[in-house]
Amino acid sequence: MSKKISNTVIKRLPRYYRYLGDLLENDVVRISSNELSKRMDVTASQIRQDLNNFGGFGQQGYGYNVEYLYHEIGKILGLDRKYQVIIIGAGNLGQALGKYSDFERRGFIVKGIFDVSPSLVGQSIRGINIQDYSEIKDMIKSQNIDIAILTTPKHQTIQVATDLVTYGIKSIWNFAPIDLKLVLPKEINVENVHLLDSLMTLTYRCANPEKD
Amino acid sequence: MSKKISNTVIKRLPRYYRYLGDLLENDVVRISSNELSKRMDVTASQIRQDLNNFGGFGQQGYGYNVEYLYHEIGKILGLDRKYQVIIIGAGNLGQALGKYSDFERRGFIVKGIFDVSPSLVGQSIRGINIQDYSEIKDMIKSQNIDIAILTTPKHQTIQVATDLVTYGIKSIWNFAPIDLKLVLPKEINVENVHLLDSLMTLTYRCANPEKD
Repeated sequence: MSKKISNTVIKRLPRYYRYLGDLLENDVVRISSNELSKRMDVTASQIRQDLNNFGGFGQQGYGYNVEYLYHEIGKILGLDRKYQVIIIGAGNLGQALGKYSDFERRGFIVKGIFDVSPSLVGQSIRGINIQDYSEIKDMIKSQNIDIAILTTPKHQTIQVATDLVTYGIKSIWNFAPIDLKLVLPKEINVENVHLLDSLMTLTYRCANPEKD
Repeated sequence: MSKKISNTVIKRLPRYYRYLGDLLENDVVRISSNELSKRMDVTASQIRQDLNNFGGFGQQGYGYNVEYLYHEIGKILGLDRKYQVIIIGAGNLGQALGKYSDFERRGFIVKGIFDVSPSLVGQSIRGINIQDYSEIKDMIKSQNIDIAILTTPKHQTIQVATDLVTYGIKSIWNFAPIDLKLVLPKEINVENVHLLDSLMTLTYRCANPEKD
């Protein structure tokens, strides 16, 4: 793709994909940008602009073919292939992600779960043994791991992320409360889920109810 | 507060709080907006502007007192009080959140965990019994619940959220893949964590590596 797509647009694509998936489930065949706009609380012109970044997909007077657009956006999102993933950190959250069987259905194959704690190593999550962290290098090299999911404690995260990048990992889904983008090479893909940041945004709204 | 603060600024506040917490842990007493800017990858003028929304806190030529600013931002974020929370949905993610003991330390007291599944009801998470969903109304009324955490399956979420609002819940931390803001009354605070949206943003970057 030659054109650089803005982060704001990229962040909206999964929402389009989710809404179109809902429409598909409800057997909706086509939808206008106006209807989609009402459901998603994004303006119709914004939707048209966003999709024009990727070549449009709509037809004047017809709208969008839901199934076609769903699959095209899926392709843009890279969902037309499988991803081999590993989870580092087998605490509560790492275990929950490891147990999430929908992952597999969506094309994310959990190839390994790693921890340093002797009390966790050897346990099994959905048939996957928790391995010692020292074995991670071999796994990454031998299994062509695409994505590392980090649920490590904060103070270990930078070291682990640096290791992973050295071993060849290019994409990190990071749940640790650290902004990894600032410490890793620019070409590494990092997507952060900062749960406590999100919860604090909610407490802000509790503490500062809107007047109008 | 009379002035309306933009969502973008609100979303940055937890990051300021997190960085200032790190500085505090490392015994840093004061910091200039320039130094903070370098660490956070936000411009110094942006930091000054953001904080000016709440009265400034900085002193020309001195910078910010880290401990003072940390506590002031904590207050703005509503973190100077405790919150009574309930979790609805005791699946993998609900259980992981229920087990997260740091919650309590940060002022979020889990008063109840609810599910409809007979195989889960009666089980205990960190000493908290999983209760049947039918008991939720009494809990909300009797315990002054501030925040409901939703980890329900997608197709049950709108009904559950509507129930909760009827029973008096004002704030929802939503993990279900539904944009609840669009279906609930405007005055209800909703903060979404859309895990799959986040993962798809990452696969987008895998599929579309930047050329430059």
